[in-house]
Amino acid sequence: MVKSIKKINAAIIIIGNEILSGRTQDINVAYLSKWLNDLGVTVEEVRIIPDIEKKIIVTINEVRKKFNYVFTTGGIGPTHDDITAKSIAKAFNMSFGYHKEAYSILEKYYEIGKFSEGRKKMAKMPKEASLIYNPSSGAPGFIVNNVFCLPGVPSILQSMVKGLKNKIVGGKKILSKTISARTVESEIAKSLDAVQKQFKNIEIGSYPFFRFGKIGVSIVMRATKINEINACSKKIVKFLKNKKIKIIER
Amino acid sequence: MVKSIKKINAAIIIIGNEILSGRTQDINVAYLSKWLNDLGVTVEEVRIIPDIEKKIIVTINEVRKKFNYVFTTGGIGPTHDDITAKSIAKAFNMSFGYHKEAYSILEKYYEIGKFSEGRKKMAKMPKEASLIYNPSSGAPGFIVNNVFCLPGVPSILQSMVKGLKNKIVGGKKILSKTISARTVESEIAKSLDAVQKQFKNIEIGSYPFFRFGKIGVSIVMRATKINEINACSKKIVKFLKNKKIKIIER
Repeated sequence: MVKSIKKINAAIIIIGNEILSGRTQDINVAYLSKWLNDLGVTVEEVRIIPDIEKKIIVTINEVRKKFNYVFTTGGIGPTHDDITAKSIAKAFNMSFGYHKEAYSILEKYYEIGKFSEGRKKMAKMPKEASLIYNPSSGAPGFIVNNVFCLPGVPSILQSMVKGLKNKIVGGKKILSKTISARTVESEIAKSLDAVQKQFKNIEIGSYPFFRFGKIGVSIVMRATKINEINACSKKIVKFLKNKKIKIIER
Repeated sequence: MVKSIKKINAAIIIIGNEILSGRTQDINVAYLSKWLNDLGVTVEEVRIIPDIEKKIIVTINEVRKKFNYVFTTGGIGPTHDDITAKSIAKAFNMSFGYHKEAYSILEKYYEIGKFSEGRKKMAKMPKEASLIYNPSSGAPGFIVNNVFCLPGVPSILQSMVKGLKNKIVGGKKILSKTISARTVESEIAKSLDAVQKQFKNIEIGSYPFFRFGKIGVSIVMRATKINEINACSKKIVKFLKNKKIKIIER
């Protein structure tokens, strides 16, 4: 971990008509964001785009220049609608075809006689890519420059990112603290704004919730220094107590 | 509904650090996508962006030109981090301030003496906007040209879109049919590709799943004409039967 690098950011590109149509509920964004945050990388943008080659190429070529890291999910399986690998090769002007190591991994993974055309397709990718190993189901993901291509199935994705830690150079980890209180946002808006103005290094978010039929607000502080968060937290607790607002959790 | 308009598309912009950080799991994309699909509008892109004014302005000004409709969620509450309304006003070069009708709605909604500064902030928006009424919690959303601004809390958002039907002019509704089978993608990839080549008007997607400890694949057909979907479905069922693959659901 390079501590001197201040802010390292990432974008996540979810590739898949099934997410855009609402048929499948994405849960990879939340997983990858938390995992990256633990490594000191802040996700600053997410895009969900369809399985259309041109759209993938344009999007990748835009975001890979804007962000330190780009993670894609989806579209690396064996069927006709899995076009991520080919599109990434085109985005980078790289030759696309059987990746030697990937081919060899898959050949060993399947029983003799079961390494079908469909399965072979999963070894096709930008030839110069480096692999992301897959402990769940054989077929690897891949990395080209700062672009990391992962599958869409959450359990497989999660098993694969575990091996990626040493490939990510993060900045300072963003720490967070939450205070939840029995109130509504408009009751605390003015006081919270005043606290935010005092603590410029802290990102303070306010999120209303309904839980067990009762309303409340979670106030989330995010920053790199724990002592600043603690000082900010004290100020918030103070004004909540002054307003006789019940603190549920802190 | 204007039947002659062929394809009407939309983008969804989720505004909120809490979604980007993984703290909150978004469920508005899936809800809005399904709701729009029923109105004949296809969601073709989603972006999740932080609560940063410049980012909101740049994003809105890009997508509102590319898509027929844009829906934003989040950032229209009373706290300091709710900056969507102000940012939208800036994006459209409109004057920002108390919206007469919104102010009057909120004034009536709260008891006398309870219409605080924080609550008044929710009446501030582009002055020329038209309102999206809120049957859950008073504070309205708003529409500027083709941009519809909704809150982030799912239950409130869902109650508000119900009133929007007559504001959306959709195209032909996208119909879909799913066949789920006990197989893996690589077994059916070749046959499915052949079917896709026969049915150019149908978008065929293939999605592996794990359910109750068993694997399977859902094949989803999407198109505007039901007879084409049925013809396509027959071809798929035929090759599945030929391969002696068990069909779980169709």
